[in-house]
Amino acid sequence: MNNSMIRIIIGHIMKIEAAFLLLPCIVALIYGESEGWTYLAVAGCAAIGGSILGLKKPEDKTLFLKEGCVTTALSWIVMSLIGAAPFYFTGEIPKFVDACFETVSGFTTTGSTILNDIENLSHASLFWRSGTHWIGGMGVLVFLLSIVSLSGGSTINLMKAESPGPSVGKLVPKIKASARYLYLIYAAMTFTETLLLVIGGCPIFDSITLAFGTAGTGGFAIKGDSVAGYSAYIQWVVTVFMILFGINFNVYYFILIRHIKDAFKIEEVRYYLLVILSSIVIIFINVRDLFPSAGEAIRHTAFQVASIITTTGFATVDFDTWNTTSKIVLIMLMFIGACAGSTGGGIKVSRFVIIAKTIRKEINSYIHPRSIKKIIYDGKPAEHVMIRSVNVFMATYILILSISVFLMSFEGEDLVTTVTSVITCINNIGPGLNKLGPTCNFGFLSGFSKIVLMFDMLAGRLELFPLVMLFHPRLIKELLICGPKKHSARV
Amino acid sequence: MNNSMIRIIIGHIMKIEAAFLLLPCIVALIYGESEGWTYLAVAGCAAIGGSILGLKKPEDKTLFLKEGCVTTALSWIVMSLIGAAPFYFTGEIPKFVDACFETVSGFTTTGSTILNDIENLSHASLFWRSGTHWIGGMGVLVFLLSIVSLSGGSTINLMKAESPGPSVGKLVPKIKASARYLYLIYAAMTFTETLLLVIGGCPIFDSITLAFGTAGTGGFAIKGDSVAGYSAYIQWVVTVFMILFGINFNVYYFILIRHIKDAFKIEEVRYYLLVILSSIVIIFINVRDLFPSAGEAIRHTAFQVASIITTTGFATVDFDTWNTTSKIVLIMLMFIGACAGSTGGGIKVSRFVIIAKTIRKEINSYIHPRSIKKIIYDGKPAEHVMIRSVNVFMATYILILSISVFLMSFEGEDLVTTVTSVITCINNIGPGLNKLGPTCNFGFLSGFSKIVLMFDMLAGRLELFPLVMLFHPRLIKELLICGPKKHSARV
Repeated sequence: MNNSMIRIIIGHIMKIEAAFLLLPCIVALIYGESEGWTYLAVAGCAAIGGSILGLKKPEDKTLFLKEGCVTTALSWIVMSLIGAAPFYFTGEIPKFVDACFETVSGFTTTGSTILNDIENLSHASLFWRSGTHWIGGMGVLVFLLSIVSLSGGSTINLMKAESPGPSVGKLVPKIKASARYLYLIYAAMTFTETLLLVIGGCPIFDSITLAFGTAGTGGFAIKGDSVAGYSAYIQWVVTVFMILFGINFNVYYFILIRHIKDAFKIEEVRYYLLVILSSIVIIFINVRDLFPSAGEAIRHTAFQVASIITTTGFATVDFDTWNTTSKIVLIMLMFIGACAGSTGGGIKVSRFVIIAKTIRKEINSYIHPRSIKKIIYDGKPAEHVMIRSVNVFMATYILILSISVFLMSFEGEDLVTTVTSVITCINNIGPGLNKLGPTCNFGFLSGFSKIVLMFDMLAGRLELFPLVMLFHPRLIKELLICGPKKHSARV
Repeated sequence: MNNSMIRIIIGHIMKIEAAFLLLPCIVALIYGESEGWTYLAVAGCAAIGGSILGLKKPEDKTLFLKEGCVTTALSWIVMSLIGAAPFYFTGEIPKFVDACFETVSGFTTTGSTILNDIENLSHASLFWRSGTHWIGGMGVLVFLLSIVSLSGGSTINLMKAESPGPSVGKLVPKIKASARYLYLIYAAMTFTETLLLVIGGCPIFDSITLAFGTAGTGGFAIKGDSVAGYSAYIQWVVTVFMILFGINFNVYYFILIRHIKDAFKIEEVRYYLLVILSSIVIIFINVRDLFPSAGEAIRHTAFQVASIITTTGFATVDFDTWNTTSKIVLIMLMFIGACAGSTGGGIKVSRFVIIAKTIRKEINSYIHPRSIKKIIYDGKPAEHVMIRSVNVFMATYILILSISVFLMSFEGEDLVTTVTSVITCINNIGPGLNKLGPTCNFGFLSGFSKIVLMFDMLAGRLELFPLVMLFHPRLIKELLICGPKKHSARV
């Protein structure tokens, strides 16, 4: 294991986080809040810590896949611990495990909260809380790759470990340029949303934090009733942008470089939009009578569908009170999730498209046993490796889901609460059902349950394997013992 | 499509069913019940119908995989319709859809019932109801193969379509001999159980029907409180035999021919027993306080665990009142199911073993990217085809489960009732949770919901594909139009 290189990268991440932590300081300055000092102190410590880790340059700069995974997983854990510090030290979240839960939920763009009274937080903390969504949405390692040139090749392994979806979105041959394009699109879209919200009469602070929550498909709002209190215009803007941020970013890249034809070739996006449309129709029919006008019914339906499929988790109504069919559709959307290469979570539409094609192929092989047809995905034959990795992903997903549900059952809550707590966290959504519905919070859970759910949120955000690998006895050994020495396992 | 051959086989199945229908006639004779005449009439009609179908001999006796699947699916549907007739015509089940539900539930060894007052049925009907489990458990096509020699080779395709599990259990090179061994073991074990029950003081009629329900891992009992009213000895005998009938029958075959070593090589069985043991321990800890003595707690725990993992569905207590952890464990067991090549349902232990091994292989490939290790299953390298088919099975399973849950949601029941209704039917278990718990019945559901669940029961019993294929437009066309003509698709 190339421990020195892992150390260097974590150092970089800490310095980047220190820089981001200065933003809430500015907010505190504007609103004259004393919490700013805590943020400044944490930023200072993170910067110093990061610099110390970066002091000794490594001899070997190569990062293999396993090192990419381990680096990513450890970076996210360190990032969350540092990010939790200000919540804890300002006293706004008294328990450290709660502060960690809130920060992990933020960075992983889950949006599940332990806070009972959100509006009591300082502006600095509200800003940082929503900001974690924006940082976590596109990924902090991707950000790192966009600003520094890590020599030694294999940086693709970092991006592979952090980017969502079955195939990594390497837009252009150079990683640095790819990462820059991604962040450019991301920032431009966030800015556009903020602008549209401000134009619609939304206060600037609310607009920025709402845009952060939408862009990262996170779901933290700064109001106790999420997005319910805002105007219809604002809700529609957020709906549209949630859907846009759930689209594979390759589409925007292709549009940016005027390859419109290539943008339309991305199959997954068509199915994604189709699923959204059909879900809206089904739920609309089911909930129409709950609202005074059809317009209102369609707005709330579209908002909730967009919020759940993109795994954002904002809410304008308490969908826990909707009928069983609507709830079942929402639960299915929780699993489906957004497109690969977007900021959304869930299993990803592309995986379902690939799976559906393998089923069709299998049934055809029953009918024509000798036909050897390749599965075509995005106009190209799908590689065996991709199909295998989708299958293994699904299997691992079910495994982690089952173990987590079992562990969560110790909480003694009812079945729906228990099962949806895990579904909402592993898919990075936010609200569950029953006792964890959109009007409730996760504060009442035990510390143990919170740790389980934090694991699920991280596993979901990092597409399972980077986090699972941290538990591999061999890797733990290499990580603890081998240090900077050359090791035998690098094959 | 070789429609003539399909016709011939369905004819045979009808004649076999006619023979089986004579048994309740004898029971009616013993108890002096007039229902016997209805059974006799239905048997007569089935025999005549079957003979008419078998009149014209086919030119071509080849059965390809797709024909094997279609034949199996159609046979099971015809079988269920005929089996439902006596319930309907005796007036004991007034609605035909209910009679069909009860019979499909019987043949597929599910054991979900629509009956409110079971003990009101005639002895003939109680016998037939339990008897359907015995017939469906090992499979009626397997029975057919054990008595007639279908020339033309490809009869393995019939057995493939009806036998549970990822790899078909062809014990000896000759299909007929294999099928005979299977039924021999099956009958001997059923007889042994009946004997042990009678020795323990259980009335003969109860013993036989209980043994039928256990052997087929079905779950229909002749009492309203399932097995709760019987003595501890009887409950233990049933527990042990449920576990035995959930074991891969290859084990018994190897023991029969004194290849004890080979019997122990079947990996799946070890994991199956391990899962049973650990589930008993976990649930015992959780429910210990609900019972006056540890002995009673262990007996009820073992019974429920054995009943659920083997997908039998008998109950001695209302496990819907147990705590969340116990219920979560039971739900997991519902999915896991018994061993391949047993009479049990569910996804099957072997599939999970194979999936677990692919996950381990994938994680290792992250650590040693160049290592090419084969997955070893039962001491041999697992074939790529087997792994692929397990993956496709899982995907199709999730697809059918999701669509069914969506369709069941129209019923308007709560989430737990809705979801567990599908889980219990597709895994051929019997009771669900909440409104479909062990003390409830399926009678209150709408006709539409019952049809959805019948589909799930059949899909679960026939391992999905034979039934799914019936919906393939190409096959429907071939089935309806081509008739006895040679067709182009036979490649």
